[in-house]
Amino acid sequence: MTTTATTLKGEPLDKAALESLLRRRMFYTPSFEIYGGVSGLYDYGPPGCALQANIIDLWRKHFILEEDMLEVDCTVLTPHDVLKTSGHVDKFADWMCKDPKNGEILRADHFVEDVLESRLKGDKEARGQQVEEKEEDPKKKKKKSKSHEAVKLDDAVVKEYEEVLAQIDNYDGEQLGELIKKYDLKNPATGVQPSPPVSFNLMFQTSIGPSSNLPGYLRPETAQGQFLNFAKLLEFNTGQMPFASASIGKSYRNEISPRAGLLRVREFLMAEIEHFVDPEGHKKHHRFHEVENIELELLDRHTQLSGKTTTKSMAIGQAVRDGLVDNETLGYFLARIHLFLKKIGIDQTKIRFRQHMANEMAHYACDCWDAELLTSSGWVECVGCADRSAYDLSVHAKKTGAPLIVRQRLDEPRVIEEWEIEIERKKFGPFYKKDGRAVEAAIMATTQEERGKLAKEMEENGKVAISVPGVGDGKVEISKDLLAIKWQKRVENIREYTPNVIEPSFGIGRILYSLIEHNYWTRASEGGDEARGVLSFPPAVAPTKVLIVPLSSHKDFAPAVRKLSQKLRSAGLSSRVDDSSASIGKRYSRNDELGTPFGITVDFQTVKDGTITLRERDSTRQVRAEEDKIIEAIKALVEGSKTWKDIESELPLFEGQQDVEVPVR
Amino acid sequence: MTTTATTLKGEPLDKAALESLLRRRMFYTPSFEIYGGVSGLYDYGPPGCALQANIIDLWRKHFILEEDMLEVDCTVLTPHDVLKTSGHVDKFADWMCKDPKNGEILRADHFVEDVLESRLKGDKEARGQQVEEKEEDPKKKKKKSKSHEAVKLDDAVVKEYEEVLAQIDNYDGEQLGELIKKYDLKNPATGVQPSPPVSFNLMFQTSIGPSSNLPGYLRPETAQGQFLNFAKLLEFNTGQMPFASASIGKSYRNEISPRAGLLRVREFLMAEIEHFVDPEGHKKHHRFHEVENIELELLDRHTQLSGKTTTKSMAIGQAVRDGLVDNETLGYFLARIHLFLKKIGIDQTKIRFRQHMANEMAHYACDCWDAELLTSSGWVECVGCADRSAYDLSVHAKKTGAPLIVRQRLDEPRVIEEWEIEIERKKFGPFYKKDGRAVEAAIMATTQEERGKLAKEMEENGKVAISVPGVGDGKVEISKDLLAIKWQKRVENIREYTPNVIEPSFGIGRILYSLIEHNYWTRASEGGDEARGVLSFPPAVAPTKVLIVPLSSHKDFAPAVRKLSQKLRSAGLSSRVDDSSASIGKRYSRNDELGTPFGITVDFQTVKDGTITLRERDSTRQVRAEEDKIIEAIKALVEGSKTWKDIESELPLFEGQQDVEVPVR
Repeated sequence: MTTTATTLKGEPLDKAALESLLRRRMFYTPSFEIYGGVSGLYDYGPPGCALQANIIDLWRKHFILEEDMLEVDCTVLTPHDVLKTSGHVDKFADWMCKDPKNGEILRADHFVEDVLESRLKGDKEARGQQVEEKEEDPKKKKKKSKSHEAVKLDDAVVKEYEEVLAQIDNYDGEQLGELIKKYDLKNPATGVQPSPPVSFNLMFQTSIGPSSNLPGYLRPETAQGQFLNFAKLLEFNTGQMPFASASIGKSYRNEISPRAGLLRVREFLMAEIEHFVDPEGHKKHHRFHEVENIELELLDRHTQLSGKTTTKSMAIGQAVRDGLVDNETLGYFLARIHLFLKKIGIDQTKIRFRQHMANEMAHYACDCWDAELLTSSGWVECVGCADRSAYDLSVHAKKTGAPLIVRQRLDEPRVIEEWEIEIERKKFGPFYKKDGRAVEAAIMATTQEERGKLAKEMEENGKVAISVPGVGDGKVEISKDLLAIKWQKRVENIREYTPNVIEPSFGIGRILYSLIEHNYWTRASEGGDEARGVLSFPPAVAPTKVLIVPLSSHKDFAPAVRKLSQKLRSAGLSSRVDDSSASIGKRYSRNDELGTPFGITVDFQTVKDGTITLRERDSTRQVRAEEDKIIEAIKALVEGSKTWKDIESELPLFEGQQDVEVPVR
Repeated sequence: MTTTATTLKGEPLDKAALESLLRRRMFYTPSFEIYGGVSGLYDYGPPGCALQANIIDLWRKHFILEEDMLEVDCTVLTPHDVLKTSGHVDKFADWMCKDPKNGEILRADHFVEDVLESRLKGDKEARGQQVEEKEEDPKKKKKKSKSHEAVKLDDAVVKEYEEVLAQIDNYDGEQLGELIKKYDLKNPATGVQPSPPVSFNLMFQTSIGPSSNLPGYLRPETAQGQFLNFAKLLEFNTGQMPFASASIGKSYRNEISPRAGLLRVREFLMAEIEHFVDPEGHKKHHRFHEVENIELELLDRHTQLSGKTTTKSMAIGQAVRDGLVDNETLGYFLARIHLFLKKIGIDQTKIRFRQHMANEMAHYACDCWDAELLTSSGWVECVGCADRSAYDLSVHAKKTGAPLIVRQRLDEPRVIEEWEIEIERKKFGPFYKKDGRAVEAAIMATTQEERGKLAKEMEENGKVAISVPGVGDGKVEISKDLLAIKWQKRVENIREYTPNVIEPSFGIGRILYSLIEHNYWTRASEGGDEARGVLSFPPAVAPTKVLIVPLSSHKDFAPAVRKLSQKLRSAGLSSRVDDSSASIGKRYSRNDELGTPFGITVDFQTVKDGTITLRERDSTRQVRAEEDKIIEAIKALVEGSKTWKDIESELPLFEGQQDVEVPVR
């Protein structure tokens, strides 16, 4: 999985230079840095914040508005019961080991991965091959470089290690423990083998209310809030299916060892869609034909299990027809995810869709594909697209008794004979008091077969006993004056079903970071100054659209600058003025690093005739025209209705003025 | 403070009807309701979510874009040390009492307020006066109504109670305890006097990382993240002062007893500005002249201490000149806050600015004014505008040694003679190791007078002892080979100062709820159907701008509807189609409740000649024209460049078709 990262122009990526740029321009910065920082927490500065807002804005348009999704905003604080039911309390965990010597806590899969990779590197070195360094944060790297020794391995061992690494996400704790023993993996910091992996729950815990009696968590995903509101959302949608809800908000995971900057953090922004669909009829999608010819790079489960990572390029229509991707709705969203990533400026040669392996899948998923983006930290999961089937709605309905179902009018009525439950509500509630809901839910969850037996038991004993976990000793008796179980015939005009859920889930921070890497290059590749970095964001996502540069601090320029900013503001174009005393070249250079796509120079000619020059970031070429024409051109460029080439053919080129190379007094 | 709330049209507000509307239309809903809910947590449904997004969008334009503020997005998770330094660990607390009989936990000030208000109501009843009910959430109300008995009080007692209530926010825990004893206040639920108030910290606590050794909190405000980034933000702003940072994000307060729906919740969206200003020169603001004539309703500290709540109407310029509002920058923001609230549609007769009393102010503030909005729960603090002076930057700088200061080039150099500290860095760091930073910060924080004494001590003993809380036993010795203290003369070209901070802080949920109440009315006031509620949001904040209503489900309408939605989408106008089988009247009625300002009917004439009708929500009047003209009109209305009256004078009125009163087949 190690990789040599490249810039937008295909040259080797100097990650240290990029990181220095990002720090210098305050895209993001470690949180609480003056207190020494907290690993896995980052703050976004002004350009990072604007970039994030623009990605979110495009996301909202591409998904929510385009398909009339129902956006909701649910709380992060979540009571224990909800996440117990959803399975997160028991299963949302990573495996961690402890170094018995220095007490260091290691994430087991990363530990295995790191040690095996370092042995493979040592082997390559011993064989005299070039070693490709995988970039990590500097602290980590220091530790690792010590451990990496040039030792040649048997060919068979190399192959075995590579196979383990290809399916590293497929191992559970026990298996990771076996690998550690089998290969005698030691913590490079101490030379000691760590303890066997134990499960560590990734949720942040807290307590809600003053009496500390309501344990809660920070949500690990926005999804649960959407599921719990399903019945209300269906009603809001006037009962029509299918439909999708969506939510944009922070989620939290108490990572064991955060690393790789924005790629593995403890607090992060997510954008999630829950598309509710009828499980009958193969989950067709009525707009699938619009996307069926879109080609995706697919890496399926079988390929990975065979120890390989080769992708297949395939139209999504074909992938669904071949059964590689399970159904049209899942396929539709994979294609839509691809289109979104393309729109915001992700490098098309650095995307692949990887299917989860069986052991790797979240406890709720029945199929899952990740959109992975290639970065200097290897392939990074940036969007997950899971088929959660009816898992969540079913478990919450079962636990609470809430009807999280769809009632569909049938064209032809159906006659049904079956065991039915009748509860004597007037007595039932007062009798069981606070346990009433749990007891009722347990009764309603019984199968037809169980009901048959219960009916017999009731007839014989005048009461039945059923299991209700969490109430008394787990066994509850119900007498016949509270409950009747009858064999009844009825005509159904309505079909009831629990919808399945297809869930595209976006990690905005990871997308944002990958986008930065994919759009970074330096003017060195054009023979210019090596140090001069450029971030070639598409205009629609660029943090600021226009830089306004008065030629000098001459007072005559101020009114023109003020008028121009106001006009840009009312055209909905964000701009910043740089009236510092730096040279024009330096000022443009600063804004190349900020990814500002357009620059306007206000000069003496402007004061005379109202014309201004417009500079395009990537080519550094300029045109000159009247203010209103330039603003119109920028608007078209930002909206994507015109390219810079169109503008060059419409407006006169301007070559009379200094651009980046020559400083101005 | 009790009040009779009114609708937009000045009629009495039927709060039950409004709440039913908000539930029915899913503006917001209790979180985890199918699990029984958690008090103080609410989810926003699609219209609430859109309303919130639009308020935030206008906020960003009104404040951030208008004044080139630097937006940042900092983490919610905050380590203990930061909030210890800021004072929140020790002082961010409310007073709570416990009922010894039933264990109920009460917020002390609310308890005193509730019991006294209920006695005053009982008195009014005994005197045969009409009792104005203050609306509360239903659970609360049930309890209270039991306790409220018709008992006449002495006139002097009534006056005393009213004076206590007017300054209820001014009491500390001890004083609240005295009030409870003095007036023998009992919990109506048990008839027992609760225990004396104890302090309860309002921050949610958690633990960061796998080894549980880093205690942290969910931030109670976004401000700290902005302060900690001050040095980087100043650099980003190329060193120029004054400037403001801003942040929009969730904050958390573990309220003792959340009540009144969205008005007191445990998780809420805030929008905060930190405006950094030079404390010298009376905190002037260069744009103050733009706002100085704006009239505000002011309720100052002295009026409240005298037991009254009468406001003064005054131009902000006058208020600053009179010293009522401390300085121009504070005044500028009060006026800007007023303009923002006006722009989003807050009722101008239901705003006042109330100054905090000395005991009421947060521990960091030296002056504070709240924008309060009148609702059915009385006057509610929706925006705070505090002068935090140099408090936060100073304490963080002192704790960490980070230079949270501004360096200003002086026009004339100053000659200074003073004690200077010289640290022998090569030895100092290795000697104190991890404590080095704390020791250095303690040395650097010494005053000139202290340094004089230390210099003498050093000369006599070859070492000095200084206090460093948290290191060893709190006393640290420093020998002369690590430190020198010298009397030195130097010429200063630079002035260093710690900026002061003016902080406008917006509770978005409270503003959103007040906005709903202020814009609610029913057609009953026009002689129409009482049940038909309307939310007259200004078009710019309305959740959806346009409802598209095909006359019937006739298949000929579908292409026109599709084309229209697409055109509206590309004009940036959010729309929803309602092609349900309900009557046109019913469909418009549903959207009046959602606050949708405009409706378009597509009918047979549309299919023939491409004309459509446009209906305005508040007047229910309609015009008819070609599609493009109608879209242009809507755009102008939403942007605020035209009023409905303008549109009626430009486009032909349409009266031929049924509106809301007559159902259509």
